Amino acid sequence: MITSPHNAQLKTIRRLQRKRERERAGLVVAEGEDLVAAAAAAGFEPEVLLRADVDVEPALLDGVSALGSGTRVVGVYHRRWSEPGGELSVYLHGVRDPGNVGTVIRCAHALCDGPVILGPGCADPWSPKAVRASMGAAFARPPARAPIEEIGGSLLALDQCAERELGEVELGGPVVLCLGSEREGLPDELLERAAARARIGVRPDGPESINVAMAAAIALHVTRTRMADRA
Amino acid sequence: MITSPHNAQLKTIRRLQRKRERERAGLVVAEGEDLVAAAAAAGFEPEVLLRADVDVEPALLDGVSALGSGTRVVGVYHRRWSEPGGELSVYLHGVRDPGNVGTVIRCAHALCDGPVILGPGCADPWSPKAVRASMGAAFARPPARAPIEEIGGSLLALDQCAERELGEVELGGPVVLCLGSEREGLPDELLERAAARARIGVRPDGPESINVAMAAAIALHVTRTRMADRA
Repeated sequence: MITSPHNAQLKTIRRLQRKRERERAGLVVAEGEDLVAAAAAAGFEPEVLLRADVDVEPALLDGVSALGSGTRVVGVYHRRWSEPGGELSVYLHGVRDPGNVGTVIRCAHALCDGPVILGPGCADPWSPKAVRASMGAAFARPPARAPIEEIGGSLLALDQCAERELGEVELGGPVVLCLGSEREGLPDELLERAAARARIGVRPDGPESINVAMAAAIALHVTRTRMADRA
Repeated sequence: MITSPHNAQLKTIRRLQRKRERERAGLVVAEGEDLVAAAAAAGFEPEVLLRADVDVEPALLDGVSALGSGTRVVGVYHRRWSEPGGELSVYLHGVRDPGNVGTVIRCAHALCDGPVILGPGCADPWSPKAVRASMGAAFARPPARAPIEEIGGSLLALDQCAERELGEVELGGPVVLCLGSEREGLPDELLERAAARARIGVRPDGPESINVAMAAAIALHVTRTRMADRA
């Protein structure tokens, strides 16, 4: 039972709160029983696994938690990355909020067979906030990293300035749904490379934009349904 | 220029961080330029409006912020509530997370003409977190409160155990999309009262559930599109 805050495993977990340390070590921290169970279910072997009252004093575990007190278990794992692929996948550009990145990873796990591919300017999908927002989907279906030039399939760019709505676009082959940040959208370079641009139909008197995770959920569902109808 | 933390207006704002105080006073606090602008655009007159460096010392404004430092403006307003109505609206039951309540309010503003109706067990839509997640939609389209017995129209219950998917359900008249909490779903009493139950089609190997705000976004978009096709 660990009773000292100077314990090496606790120090490792604390250090992994910093993005640079996570990247250098190639590790990810899962806090809480649900996430540790999700990692185990996906076949991740823990490098460190600390349970409150069993392996470590609860107050010490709280002291290394990035997400607040009350954590009963913390696991540390080697990250995995997927390769781009699947009939339907998602590409994110400049999505800086870790909660949005994690939520899109969770949505993709529910609605498509390919991974979430992270382009430039996205939040670290292995940060504590992103992993928590993914509800473990980051373990079940790890994200991918790739520049847009190296991604195969038809790029469907979500662009609220597009003329056509999502339901009006015909696309063959594997589809990669591309979403940018809420404020800035997708870069021109990507829009030019896209096989099609489409928008989500919203009320004219509604908000100027919708949250990127909401947009991903709607767009994945529409595209998934249309691809199934066509098959 | 306010220079004392004992100023009465600052004390009011601090007190309104507590739900009971907000309800007693019937007030809501908007933090930040975007939310204050949204309140003004919706015709809300501020009871208190404090701008950093103009009306108050910045550090004192930070001291009463519920959402962290760096707030440049805080406004206090009398709340408004909508009446249930519209061709398409949303009813929430037991959605305890303020971020989810605010996000659904934002989604509804983008995708339907009726308000979000809050049933038992929902988070306060006027809490700082909910108002921020709504991105001001709580001002543009205030939520409603009503017991399910008093809501007219066809209740469409989202229930992941339902046999039919959303796209397979035929519904006439005003539709009220009903969603429960992610873990517990909707109560039996509501399911029995519903004109139809439907689920969102998800991958069998995906997560066990999807976030209630994601589910609302998808279900509103599907229902909105089908109602428009029928019209």
